[in-house]
Amino acid sequence: MPIYNPPLRDMQFVMHELFKVTDEFRAMPRHADIDVDTINAILEEAGKFASEVIFPLNISGDTEGCQLNRETHEVTTPKGFKEAYQTYVAGGWPALSCDPEFGGQGLPFVVNQCLYEMMNSANQAWTMYPGLTHGAYAALEAHGTPEQKHTYLPKMTSGEWTGTMCLTEPHCGTDLGLLRTKAEPQADGTYKLTGTKIFISAGEHDLAENIVHLVLARLPDAPPGIKGISLFIVPKFRVNADGSLGERNAIFCAGLEHKMGIHGNATCQMVLDGAVGTMVGQPNKGMQAMFVMMNAARLGVGNQSLGLTEVAYQNALAYAKDRLQMRSLSGPKAKDKPADPIIVHPDVRKMLLTAKAYAEGGRALAIFCSVLLEKVHFHPDEKVRKDSEEMLSLLTPITKAFLTDNGWQATMMCQQVFGGHGYIKEWGMEQFVRDARINMIYEGTNTIQALDLLGRKVLSNNGATLKKFGKLVAQLVEEEGVNEKMAEFINPIAMLGDQMTKFTTEIGFKGMQNPDEIGAAAVDYLRVAGHLVFGYFWARMAQVALREIAAGNTDPFYAAKLQTARFYFAKLFPETASLMRTARAGAAPLMETELALA
Amino acid sequence: MPIYNPPLRDMQFVMHELFKVTDEFRAMPRHADIDVDTINAILEEAGKFASEVIFPLNISGDTEGCQLNRETHEVTTPKGFKEAYQTYVAGGWPALSCDPEFGGQGLPFVVNQCLYEMMNSANQAWTMYPGLTHGAYAALEAHGTPEQKHTYLPKMTSGEWTGTMCLTEPHCGTDLGLLRTKAEPQADGTYKLTGTKIFISAGEHDLAENIVHLVLARLPDAPPGIKGISLFIVPKFRVNADGSLGERNAIFCAGLEHKMGIHGNATCQMVLDGAVGTMVGQPNKGMQAMFVMMNAARLGVGNQSLGLTEVAYQNALAYAKDRLQMRSLSGPKAKDKPADPIIVHPDVRKMLLTAKAYAEGGRALAIFCSVLLEKVHFHPDEKVRKDSEEMLSLLTPITKAFLTDNGWQATMMCQQVFGGHGYIKEWGMEQFVRDARINMIYEGTNTIQALDLLGRKVLSNNGATLKKFGKLVAQLVEEEGVNEKMAEFINPIAMLGDQMTKFTTEIGFKGMQNPDEIGAAAVDYLRVAGHLVFGYFWARMAQVALREIAAGNTDPFYAAKLQTARFYFAKLFPETASLMRTARAGAAPLMETELALA
Repeated sequence: MPIYNPPLRDMQFVMHELFKVTDEFRAMPRHADIDVDTINAILEEAGKFASEVIFPLNISGDTEGCQLNRETHEVTTPKGFKEAYQTYVAGGWPALSCDPEFGGQGLPFVVNQCLYEMMNSANQAWTMYPGLTHGAYAALEAHGTPEQKHTYLPKMTSGEWTGTMCLTEPHCGTDLGLLRTKAEPQADGTYKLTGTKIFISAGEHDLAENIVHLVLARLPDAPPGIKGISLFIVPKFRVNADGSLGERNAIFCAGLEHKMGIHGNATCQMVLDGAVGTMVGQPNKGMQAMFVMMNAARLGVGNQSLGLTEVAYQNALAYAKDRLQMRSLSGPKAKDKPADPIIVHPDVRKMLLTAKAYAEGGRALAIFCSVLLEKVHFHPDEKVRKDSEEMLSLLTPITKAFLTDNGWQATMMCQQVFGGHGYIKEWGMEQFVRDARINMIYEGTNTIQALDLLGRKVLSNNGATLKKFGKLVAQLVEEEGVNEKMAEFINPIAMLGDQMTKFTTEIGFKGMQNPDEIGAAAVDYLRVAGHLVFGYFWARMAQVALREIAAGNTDPFYAAKLQTARFYFAKLFPETASLMRTARAGAAPLMETELALA
Repeated sequence: MPIYNPPLRDMQFVMHELFKVTDEFRAMPRHADIDVDTINAILEEAGKFASEVIFPLNISGDTEGCQLNRETHEVTTPKGFKEAYQTYVAGGWPALSCDPEFGGQGLPFVVNQCLYEMMNSANQAWTMYPGLTHGAYAALEAHGTPEQKHTYLPKMTSGEWTGTMCLTEPHCGTDLGLLRTKAEPQADGTYKLTGTKIFISAGEHDLAENIVHLVLARLPDAPPGIKGISLFIVPKFRVNADGSLGERNAIFCAGLEHKMGIHGNATCQMVLDGAVGTMVGQPNKGMQAMFVMMNAARLGVGNQSLGLTEVAYQNALAYAKDRLQMRSLSGPKAKDKPADPIIVHPDVRKMLLTAKAYAEGGRALAIFCSVLLEKVHFHPDEKVRKDSEEMLSLLTPITKAFLTDNGWQATMMCQQVFGGHGYIKEWGMEQFVRDARINMIYEGTNTIQALDLLGRKVLSNNGATLKKFGKLVAQLVEEEGVNEKMAEFINPIAMLGDQMTKFTTEIGFKGMQNPDEIGAAAVDYLRVAGHLVFGYFWARMAQVALREIAAGNTDPFYAAKLQTARFYFAKLFPETASLMRTARAGAAPLMETELALA
């Protein structure tokens, strides 16, 4: 059976020693009083929920999957999922970072971030049921009418109701401009929606008494393309004026997908057959509200792979210490045993350290983003809010794509550590790989993330936001440039920072002449940017560790952190050399292939 | 539903235009008369068998899996598997490259190679039932007594009986020296075997009337470790003197593994409870005979991923031409349609071309190896036999690991082309990924392949065999060094060839001081070697294509080949730059991590 130990110590390191989040929070009246101990105490409980309540349901949920009753259109989730959700609601976990105005606990997003990392480690499929609610909550909070907020947000905050995002249709996923679902205005101000949506995660289930679907659809007179899309709330059960549940709405699950992974989550085909909804935001401006959901979801997806990377690592590490097989090339290490534990082999260590470095780097990035999100919402200084929003918008596609690509590699390597046993279901490793696979696809494929980063976030403002990140790097380089002990961490990022600047300008020029140059370079570019970001955080983590060691702190945590940082710069970061070469090879080798791809 | 079209044209190109196999065969009396048309005609029929008989059973076989009756210990394979096997036997396919002395057709191995590539594309799980037989056949042919050969080989040739390799035990996979299964000598010259084997592919099934298990076990007085292992034939049903089937032997399937993929193949836990066997080869020399099986199996595993890469590519290409989504960045291409087919997008093309370049490069390598194998067995000149054996032994771990790592990347990318649909079982793409995953693990993990290459095949003879491959490269460089049109293909391999020489010497020196340096560099080294090999074959394929075009041949096949070659050198080959950096970073960042991996 797999194991999972909440990585509380590392979370505390990132929050309190690396980013000193409570110092940041002191600038925000909402969180001025929150202290380190409170955060740590909550996360300790959160870790118990994840490891004790939902982790034991991970393999059984995968094996059992969800069942659809085709007559009632009701979905039964795997055994134990419903009870776990009741425990989750009873513990107040859905409300953690929600607004006190709607019954939320108003805690900083970083607490919710860490809760979700642990829940994703424990059971990604289960976690998607509450997880989807947050995106819907954010869209309603930002764009809903006071009445809509009053009707829906308290129930979503309490967890009594969950949410979904109904975007994709059979003929359109990435290209939402093609969508066909219709919304007909009714005399009472509501709309009747008709159409078919697919790939709706948590679209129907038995965990909550109501499901709040946020649905993209077209008004009868809507212009074509994405400028003619509006957003609607379509609840599974209509809501009476007094807040009680009314009649069943005409939005039904017509089928469940059979998938590679996340079997415990119901991926639904949803049919809207004149379902009644109300509009969120302005007519034909649905994409704006949708992007509020989508950005939250993209960070959430990166967090899913972070969770899987961590849990896969923990299991592979335990197995590598336990499994005896062959002797170390440099002579027997466990002489009293018939063979050495496989952790003595350099390549086994490389696979383990890859997962560890990606997990810890990913955790730093994810927590950094959650602090930015906090500033976007609650910082009193408008400039800080605006700057934070820009930085977060730059880091969102990196978080989504880099963490999920890394998670795919890391879970695969951790599976590899198990040899043949990694391919067998009961060990749990192959499930981490299958579950991790979806994260590279949904909420915008990783190619779309790369185009978003390079086209929209970097080149559209001539790299201004990227330069702001570059300034953080430059500041660290300046701070530590004369510190010999930091040279091994500082030199690579200083060099890559310079190269990125040139590289970006180059692609910008080429892209002006031929936009396919952007598309050809984008995926490589995102990975290079990802390593610049990870390199920066790893250098800062090394900086903290070196300071603690210099101050006489003998906690082995800091020396371990340094070792992992060294591994990262020696064995993972150099990938950037090839990536810049292949990006520079340009569009021609891809586009001048009409016969090869005939 | 997925599609599959046997890639006959490309096979013909590699066999007849690139390697001119019939010219090679003319030196071997056994094959002196075989001609191009005969080979092509057989492969056309083989392609029909693969695409029409077993391909339609691929998804259903995955969904259904195998069933074990725990009382009778009998395994039922998925619907249609048995009938397909009868068709296979009736068609004489098992006998293709077997020895005429035992009823074989005595055709060159290259024919069998191409048959198996196509069967692996069509249905890897099914193909493993006949596939495992070839390794057992090879071991018996090389090390069996005349009586053993007479008893078993004709039935394996006809396909009436299948074979297995029973190596792994619960506590040992890689480290066979630890194995515990016992073989007690009996008065009649037979042995009684007792023990438990796991992960036995095709260990029990309903396709054939008997199963010939080749089992590694220890004699009572055997020395410890791998020098105390012997090989035994243990048939499911004992064989009477007249060749008829006798009593059921005490070797039973006690359980089936639940796996990530290859569900249609029965992966068995086999219990030997005093099962009667006869020894193959000499006492305590079982590893020698085992390596005959294992080397055949390793080439076979590379071929499995080659097959999956090809079929995944074909499906992704068809989907990319069909699926309309977004407009080209450089302006609409399909103006009459609501969106452009996704093949207009550079990164979609990159994913497709990656799979194509890996499939076609892999095919060249696999066919090259099959010609080497022919020479090892049938060339009249002893020096040619010896040289060919050395070269094949160098290329075997590369074929196994490089093709399977590439297959993993390629099937994943082809799945990615499908977006969300790639995650859904009915499209078939996720199965290719799950099936491809085992190929990196079994028959020696890819880490083991890398250690075999660098430690045993390269450094143990001071790089002598590698230098022979280097000479092939140097010869091509000399031949084409002044041909301007070949410069783009020749320059990269010339440079990498030089770098490899230095790089190998460097690692050799470091390894003498610290053997962990070998283990730390091996995996990166194998990928660099793989690109040197692929680069060489891609340059030679480009050479043939350029010559045909220069000679006025207007078949677009040649221009397509050039385009793919250009893509390969521009976008895949440069990976070597980072790999050499990370290999050079050495063992310290992996080994000095005792706290990080505590």
